[in-house]
Amino acid sequence: MKFGRLGVGVKVLAFTASLLFAAQAFPQADPLPSWNDGVAKTAILAFVKDTTTQGSPKFVSPAERVATFDQDGTLWVEHPIYTQVMFVLESVPALVKAKPELAKVAPYSTVLELLKGDRAAMAKLTEADLFKLLAATSTGMPVETFQAEARKWIAEAKHPRLKKPYTELTYLPMQEVLKYLRDNGYKTYIVTGGGQDFVRVYSEKTYGIPPEQVVGSAGGTTYGYGKDGKPFLTKEPKLLLNDNNAGKPEAIHLMIGRRPNMSVGNSTGDRQMLEYTKAGDGARLSMLVLHDDAKREYAYGPAQGLADTKVGTFSPQLYAEATKQGWTVISMKSDWKKIFAFE
Amino acid sequence: MKFGRLGVGVKVLAFTASLLFAAQAFPQADPLPSWNDGVAKTAILAFVKDTTTQGSPKFVSPAERVATFDQDGTLWVEHPIYTQVMFVLESVPALVKAKPELAKVAPYSTVLELLKGDRAAMAKLTEADLFKLLAATSTGMPVETFQAEARKWIAEAKHPRLKKPYTELTYLPMQEVLKYLRDNGYKTYIVTGGGQDFVRVYSEKTYGIPPEQVVGSAGGTTYGYGKDGKPFLTKEPKLLLNDNNAGKPEAIHLMIGRRPNMSVGNSTGDRQMLEYTKAGDGARLSMLVLHDDAKREYAYGPAQGLADTKVGTFSPQLYAEATKQGWTVISMKSDWKKIFAFE
Repeated sequence: MKFGRLGVGVKVLAFTASLLFAAQAFPQADPLPSWNDGVAKTAILAFVKDTTTQGSPKFVSPAERVATFDQDGTLWVEHPIYTQVMFVLESVPALVKAKPELAKVAPYSTVLELLKGDRAAMAKLTEADLFKLLAATSTGMPVETFQAEARKWIAEAKHPRLKKPYTELTYLPMQEVLKYLRDNGYKTYIVTGGGQDFVRVYSEKTYGIPPEQVVGSAGGTTYGYGKDGKPFLTKEPKLLLNDNNAGKPEAIHLMIGRRPNMSVGNSTGDRQMLEYTKAGDGARLSMLVLHDDAKREYAYGPAQGLADTKVGTFSPQLYAEATKQGWTVISMKSDWKKIFAFE
Repeated sequence: MKFGRLGVGVKVLAFTASLLFAAQAFPQADPLPSWNDGVAKTAILAFVKDTTTQGSPKFVSPAERVATFDQDGTLWVEHPIYTQVMFVLESVPALVKAKPELAKVAPYSTVLELLKGDRAAMAKLTEADLFKLLAATSTGMPVETFQAEARKWIAEAKHPRLKKPYTELTYLPMQEVLKYLRDNGYKTYIVTGGGQDFVRVYSEKTYGIPPEQVVGSAGGTTYGYGKDGKPFLTKEPKLLLNDNNAGKPEAIHLMIGRRPNMSVGNSTGDRQMLEYTKAGDGARLSMLVLHDDAKREYAYGPAQGLADTKVGTFSPQLYAEATKQGWTVISMKSDWKKIFAFE
């Protein structure tokens, strides 16, 4: 080894060392810059400090750090209609084009009216209709075909009021929490009532959450062989996991096998996940997002006199339970400086 | 900043730099020291090189690197009886103690004979009996109770012939492959016909594979509340996932959502997983472990005239498919210098 080369190496290393010293001399940047100071922000910072500081009585080893997030209404906008329901509705014209006999048959005819601007048509669609539409547009095909269609739609579709692609309608403060948790050794998961296969298509790019960390409602698949002898999986219209209510902790056990240290939700469908998380030993943080900002986003649930709404149901009981069980309520209006990155 | 302190820092850094230079000057250590040179070892090294070298046409981005391993007969010994079946059988005395009325009822009475040394009793147990025993010993309790019982058993139980704890009966060459893949950015998964909840208890300590990367046969759970109002999950005797045969690729899609780049199995229950893996684009490696070393482990399947055996079924068709589809066969006798770490 030549002395000259080593000399350059030492200079570079000394410079690197001075940067390291400098970094230590200044306070760390705020990891949650879009959050106003308040109970919610303090709770998140305290939770991370308690669970990641060596020697803390509430320390959690890095391998065991799990945080689970509902998606619709918790990580991104769910009004006026869940994004995946929009995908299903907007997939109907292509379906009708392929099978013209469906054009005059409900619920397909109802959806065609709805897409022409007849908003009242939405009220006619029952939950059974939606499941029928979901089965017709999202099953009976190879998983790769579904993934390609969902990927194409999500790249092009826009929110009717906010006029932005859905993937830009994620909440910036929640993106900061996801990143902050990951920077502190947490595995972040989406645990959604939405379809697992749908959310997995964009989760990595949109949230930095890989497909294997998306737990959602899931239909079965069937293994079979194509004409070329190659094996493939077909999506079946058979519900395997209903990832809502009690289904959330049950699916967390199936898919993750650990009780989360932290969970965030916003509706009655998240109640059991928040309870299950909070009931664990040590530091556990359960949080509930309150939609109380009609101007920047939407106000519904308790912000509208605690009335139930069809999307993002948030009952008076849920709000009462948050207080009783020590869940931290996040007010979008008061706690968040910015809601979206594009603001 | 004092000059003296910086001077010490520079010396330390220069020393570190010299270590780095030294490391680069020597060839990398063999990542698979327990493997003899041969087709199998070459295939693994080539696969990792092809998929992890920037600019290679078969390069796979780190986030997409997935390798799936069957457990019984692939990562550890499965003869003479699957480890989990031993756990179920050895849990029967405690069950009978709690419910003495079962002592004279089959299949419990048959198991008690078996545990007293009556080997012929094993042949009397049907698959339905085993499921009944599994339900009686491993369900109807909180998941934490099951985990504590399984953890206690696996810490104490020993293999009847090899006289070692089961967790020491993992194959050293496969442990090297798991580590080598992880060192190269792969996520390693167990995809087992065995019970997910059972394997998850020891997978992290035994294989370095965390519970959330164990995919297995799984029963449902039910969310409920204890007398203290605290929520918990109860294990139910209802099969949710049968992670064998076509169930393996189906469960891989459900739990991981990506087609594996590499899979290793040893029996007909792994056939579809190996097919599914190999049918993907780019570099895909499917491997089949051949049990042909009666002295150091066991010889069965094709090593015994291609006969089916009750444990680790390996049909002539499977061996023929390996050749036809380009799966790489691993001969335990020829490819492995050592089978166990304790040898």
